[in-house]
Amino acid sequence: MPEIKHRTVPRKTANNPGENIIIGKNSVKAALDSEIGINRLLVVKNSKCDEEIIIKAKERGAIIEYVERSAVEKIINTANITDGGKHQGILAYVAPIRYSTLSEVFALAEQRGELPLLVLLNEVEDPHNLGAIIRSAEAAGAHGVLVPKRRSAAVNATIVKTSAGAIFHIPLVKIGNTVQALRELKKRNVWIYGTDAAGTVDFNIADWQRGACVVVGNEGSGMSRLVKEECDFLVKIPLRGKTNSLNASVAAAVVIFAAVTGRK
Amino acid sequence: MPEIKHRTVPRKTANNPGENIIIGKNSVKAALDSEIGINRLLVVKNSKCDEEIIIKAKERGAIIEYVERSAVEKIINTANITDGGKHQGILAYVAPIRYSTLSEVFALAEQRGELPLLVLLNEVEDPHNLGAIIRSAEAAGAHGVLVPKRRSAAVNATIVKTSAGAIFHIPLVKIGNTVQALRELKKRNVWIYGTDAAGTVDFNIADWQRGACVVVGNEGSGMSRLVKEECDFLVKIPLRGKTNSLNASVAAAVVIFAAVTGRK
Repeated sequence: MPEIKHRTVPRKTANNPGENIIIGKNSVKAALDSEIGINRLLVVKNSKCDEEIIIKAKERGAIIEYVERSAVEKIINTANITDGGKHQGILAYVAPIRYSTLSEVFALAEQRGELPLLVLLNEVEDPHNLGAIIRSAEAAGAHGVLVPKRRSAAVNATIVKTSAGAIFHIPLVKIGNTVQALRELKKRNVWIYGTDAAGTVDFNIADWQRGACVVVGNEGSGMSRLVKEECDFLVKIPLRGKTNSLNASVAAAVVIFAAVTGRK
Repeated sequence: MPEIKHRTVPRKTANNPGENIIIGKNSVKAALDSEIGINRLLVVKNSKCDEEIIIKAKERGAIIEYVERSAVEKIINTANITDGGKHQGILAYVAPIRYSTLSEVFALAEQRGELPLLVLLNEVEDPHNLGAIIRSAEAAGAHGVLVPKRRSAAVNATIVKTSAGAIFHIPLVKIGNTVQALRELKKRNVWIYGTDAAGTVDFNIADWQRGACVVVGNEGSGMSRLVKEECDFLVKIPLRGKTNSLNASVAAAVVIFAAVTGRK
């Protein structure tokens, strides 16, 4: 074991303003594999922590502290992390997520030689859905996720965990007014594909051979009226059972993958 | 308000063997709209419960009891319901899920004039995933979901809720040995489409113009080796990001909807 600082309690239980807490091996590994700043790593004493994580964290300049299980659990409870607290003996304080600009997102698409593919979250409230959509978007190869400043779930440990760390690998753009953001996208030759149960175009026959932004609405009420009015297409997934809706993250993934495959 | 029995505490807090507890308005409504037996309905006093639910439950012969919020919460805690206990003031004891036979599933497909479309869950462990997959399967119009007796999440309130009640509307078939079940399906002219990150056929170019069973594997380890060997096709969803896997319920939905649209 390399030289490490041993402590029985974390230095402080509160995190710095803007600093995020992440828990669990996969989330911490994803953070270490990204450019995000890792401030401190708390490891539960005598837990089976991958040596690799400790070494990488040290290389990244993180302070490593060995603490009691109860200390980690107290932090998780205080931070109100709601995904069952599967910390697997590891918790990290990371720098605030760096948000990207729209220009960076377009530069990424251009660099990859691809038509832009974006996902905009319109009042998605459940952090599990938000994390799952970010995971699908990143895995599918989308270039960015646009998240309104207001009325969306805040980036927290639950989102990091349900995104399987994808949140560190895809540009996130914080937007103020959603309608204005959509108009800005249209000026940049991106077409707006709203997902809507009463849509007019089936997801699998929509024409995806253009710059596209997929808009995902609220779990219960869907997209807001003003946002819906900005859409170039209202895309639906035809349902044939008695269940009249899909889970928001499932619907988003079905449409996002249709966009990707529709371009081949 | 029609005549109803008023009680301050539920008759008993334990449910009968095999009886299931379900919570929340949508789950209870879905149960009332299905053929499942509703034994008792507990309504939190002074909560905003839809009159419609009460009336339907009475028509269905359920005993209705008005109880304190704490009584409902105690039952939820005792039953270890893990979806945050959003009971919305309502909890029902329903008869055990009636499992279907394979023959009933085939009869349903024939009755609809469709090629059979089944989903088999191979060691899916997370009840949220199980519920979400059942929801997607039912919404997509699949004819049945095959659930192994062992090593799968048990049907409980979490599954009912995450399935948005779809579990009451799609035939569930309990299977003993998964390999034997797959062989039985093949004899009945159903082809086995395993979902696998290292699959050889892209989900969107697979040929779905035949009876099909989509096999969804474990969240971490995928399908078991023996099950994989029984598959006619190993279907993959090409991923292009740094995230090397999708959520199990997301992957299942993408493939199930590809099957449905691939048949049009």
